[in-house]
Amino acid sequence: MGMEELKRRLGQVSDLYAAAGLMSWDQETQMPGEAARVRGLQMATLAGLAHELFTDARTAELLAAAGEGQGETDAAIVRVTRREHDKATRLPTAFVEEATRARNEAHHAWLEARKRSDFATFAPHLEKMMDLARREADLLGYEEHPYDALLDQYEPGMRAAQVQPVFADLRDRTLPLLRRIVAAGDAADYSVLTRPFAPEAQKAFAWRVAGEAFGLRSTFARQDESAHPFQTNFSRSDLRITTRVEDYWPACLFGTWHETGHAMYERGVAPHWERTPVSRGASLGVHESQSRMFENLLARSRPFWERYFPQLAEVASEVTAGLDPEALYRAVNRVHPSLIRVEADEITYNFHIMLRFELELALLEGRLKVQDLPEAWNAKMQEYLGLTPPDDAQGVLQDIHWSSGLIGYFPTYTLGNLLSVQLLEAAKQDPSIAAGIKQADYAPLLAWLAQNVHQYGRSLTPTQLTQQATGQGLTADPYIAYLHQKYGEIYGLEAEG
Amino acid sequence: MGMEELKRRLGQVSDLYAAAGLMSWDQETQMPGEAARVRGLQMATLAGLAHELFTDARTAELLAAAGEGQGETDAAIVRVTRREHDKATRLPTAFVEEATRARNEAHHAWLEARKRSDFATFAPHLEKMMDLARREADLLGYEEHPYDALLDQYEPGMRAAQVQPVFADLRDRTLPLLRRIVAAGDAADYSVLTRPFAPEAQKAFAWRVAGEAFGLRSTFARQDESAHPFQTNFSRSDLRITTRVEDYWPACLFGTWHETGHAMYERGVAPHWERTPVSRGASLGVHESQSRMFENLLARSRPFWERYFPQLAEVASEVTAGLDPEALYRAVNRVHPSLIRVEADEITYNFHIMLRFELELALLEGRLKVQDLPEAWNAKMQEYLGLTPPDDAQGVLQDIHWSSGLIGYFPTYTLGNLLSVQLLEAAKQDPSIAAGIKQADYAPLLAWLAQNVHQYGRSLTPTQLTQQATGQGLTADPYIAYLHQKYGEIYGLEAEG
Repeated sequence: MGMEELKRRLGQVSDLYAAAGLMSWDQETQMPGEAARVRGLQMATLAGLAHELFTDARTAELLAAAGEGQGETDAAIVRVTRREHDKATRLPTAFVEEATRARNEAHHAWLEARKRSDFATFAPHLEKMMDLARREADLLGYEEHPYDALLDQYEPGMRAAQVQPVFADLRDRTLPLLRRIVAAGDAADYSVLTRPFAPEAQKAFAWRVAGEAFGLRSTFARQDESAHPFQTNFSRSDLRITTRVEDYWPACLFGTWHETGHAMYERGVAPHWERTPVSRGASLGVHESQSRMFENLLARSRPFWERYFPQLAEVASEVTAGLDPEALYRAVNRVHPSLIRVEADEITYNFHIMLRFELELALLEGRLKVQDLPEAWNAKMQEYLGLTPPDDAQGVLQDIHWSSGLIGYFPTYTLGNLLSVQLLEAAKQDPSIAAGIKQADYAPLLAWLAQNVHQYGRSLTPTQLTQQATGQGLTADPYIAYLHQKYGEIYGLEAEG
Repeated sequence: MGMEELKRRLGQVSDLYAAAGLMSWDQETQMPGEAARVRGLQMATLAGLAHELFTDARTAELLAAAGEGQGETDAAIVRVTRREHDKATRLPTAFVEEATRARNEAHHAWLEARKRSDFATFAPHLEKMMDLARREADLLGYEEHPYDALLDQYEPGMRAAQVQPVFADLRDRTLPLLRRIVAAGDAADYSVLTRPFAPEAQKAFAWRVAGEAFGLRSTFARQDESAHPFQTNFSRSDLRITTRVEDYWPACLFGTWHETGHAMYERGVAPHWERTPVSRGASLGVHESQSRMFENLLARSRPFWERYFPQLAEVASEVTAGLDPEALYRAVNRVHPSLIRVEADEITYNFHIMLRFELELALLEGRLKVQDLPEAWNAKMQEYLGLTPPDDAQGVLQDIHWSSGLIGYFPTYTLGNLLSVQLLEAAKQDPSIAAGIKQADYAPLLAWLAQNVHQYGRSLTPTQLTQQATGQGLTADPYIAYLHQKYGEIYGLEAEG
């Protein structure tokens, strides 16, 4: 009886978050501009009521009375709910309100600072964000390092001390590769990436392939445009992805397939966890492993373009004129050090992340002063990518994360990259999956992912999931091997010892 | 202090209803089909939480402590909230739940019954709807007639005994007119109404004119397609109208301008009532007066087509080929008895309403048995419009209302028609308004409506509003005179005594 009441209550909380999510999606894709002010109030009400309902005394009573939960389904609901309830109740309302206000101010200051490339405007707000992060870590609690408490919110169970050696390994074994690639020079004609491609045709092609290759269908999903692409969902039968159309057409195509990876993960969570906290991906890192797998490991592969080149030629003959699948494959796999994270290729991307991880860790510990951050940023950029930003807008001010209080978030991007290859290699142990991938037929792989990753939702921690699905803990080895093999071949490098 | 808490609470209730409204809009216009089941649960949660918050003990305490409210703005908030709180708390939760379930079942039975044109399937559910309506009336309370308690939910303060003589007057003075028109025969070539008009062009033209003529702008409103056109809004800066495109192109055009009337009413409510129960139209009837004014009195007028005919010709040359504004004006003002309410013209429409009003009153009183309803329906159709439905799908089963428990709703459509002319005549006392209308320049009229109707929201009752804006109570005279003048001229009838 108590379990039924608990589930009813969790359903209500889930419905409130779904409504807030729909309001946010609507704001980014449909809403008339003048509605923004009231929409902000409405979303705050929904988030506040959801938090209140989730953390009130009755929820605590029901959770206490639930014991371990009967049967696997209920046991997971109790376990995950208890974990999230515990975290949610550790932050006093006064702290949450202070943080919300400060983040709002920091976000506006950041928008302004980035526009004028003026770090000094943002600096006091970043100080405040770091102060809040330290206090939040203390409130949430940790064993080894305050960073762990923050990281745990996005990657349950992960610690800075686990991330550091993995990142160091990745850095040491891919930085030499990057330098050899840069020395080797161009491997294709990259001007094809900005050939004319009608916006509607870009979106339609990306969407059709998202369905044909990856299983995303309009009966349970839809595609819209927004300034920044994202995936959101209000149930496993109501998935929304967005895209952005640019002259650089790969942004729309690969962005769509990236969001498709996120969407198909949510689609695959077992229905019996619907409207409970279990019914979401295990972590940001595991989520990113799915989006990066679709975007990079599959859609930036040779078999993919051997299969989809003719379809592309049909809808974008100007793009494919004079090209063959191999030329296109090489063009969309350009490795090129650049200043902006979101535009980075598979190799340089992780250096953008390592840089941010190292700096936010140093800031949190107080080893690095906020006022010295731009200099530290630029020094790392020079060290890793051989570049120096001409201004802070293209350097330390480029990302939204820190201005929104998201400290401990960045590592999950690279953890996702690593896990994407680790999972794919595990899946390819099945010969039918490996054979399918060679023909860009992903049905067997999708079934494996649903079975080994998606269905579990948050019922497994990322560590449990990784161990169970791949037979080992998180490792950078497969990812490093993948980069060497793929880009060594594209750039004609001899294997190194 | 208590007033601030009351307003905060009313804001939360309003936000929950806005979220439920957005979920509903999304369901009708955007949502992937498979999402319907969970969306139903989500909307039920939001409506339930809104009702709970609005009717709980704390709201009652705050209302009791508020007294009359200080200043006009707060006084109206207290007055309207008290009225709605009073009604909301008179229906016990057990009754609301029973009614919700029964209406849901009745709705599904009606869909099935209409599809098979099988009244017997629906009959027991209609019995149940009438039973619930009688009990609801008893719970809500009334002085003269149970129907009054139901009607009051849609048209505050209106009573059956006030509707009856007005409707009788309307019937007695327009039925002879209708018969003379039918005898006179066609006044134009009506085949132009189904000439080819590309769907996107229909919507674009309707939307552009909604902006140019009536002031609806994309900065605070948007247009979408849905199976059944409607207007909804989530704040006065977030108005949504929908339309439906058919071969019969007036459906999209006049439907859009109809919903524009609803939207501009909500747009005009004074901003200081934002997120309170005052911030909605005074009643369904007053709402309908605005939509019908735009749709019929303005958009079906000669000056309107003199002004917009050239724009129509630009985007739909096949429609306007060989026509002049006068021919188009006459074509869109066809009077033609037909079986279906939503397709009816300005004269016959009200007979569809009178018929329903008379029948639902008789059912509620028990004078008419549900089993005898189809026969009674068909007899009235013959009496008023000279037609007999070939089956119940085109007769008694055509409307959704009774299957959703909406008893006492229909009269508001005709009350709106009557009030539309009464208000327009009052506005035209101002010579600049009258002069504007003759050139299809509605800016002066829109300003008058904002000043005399829109701004008040629910702070005035329909009766107060009508009295204040027109100097008299509701009367059918102006509407009847309007029909005689307009259609007497179109159909070449001599004036009668």
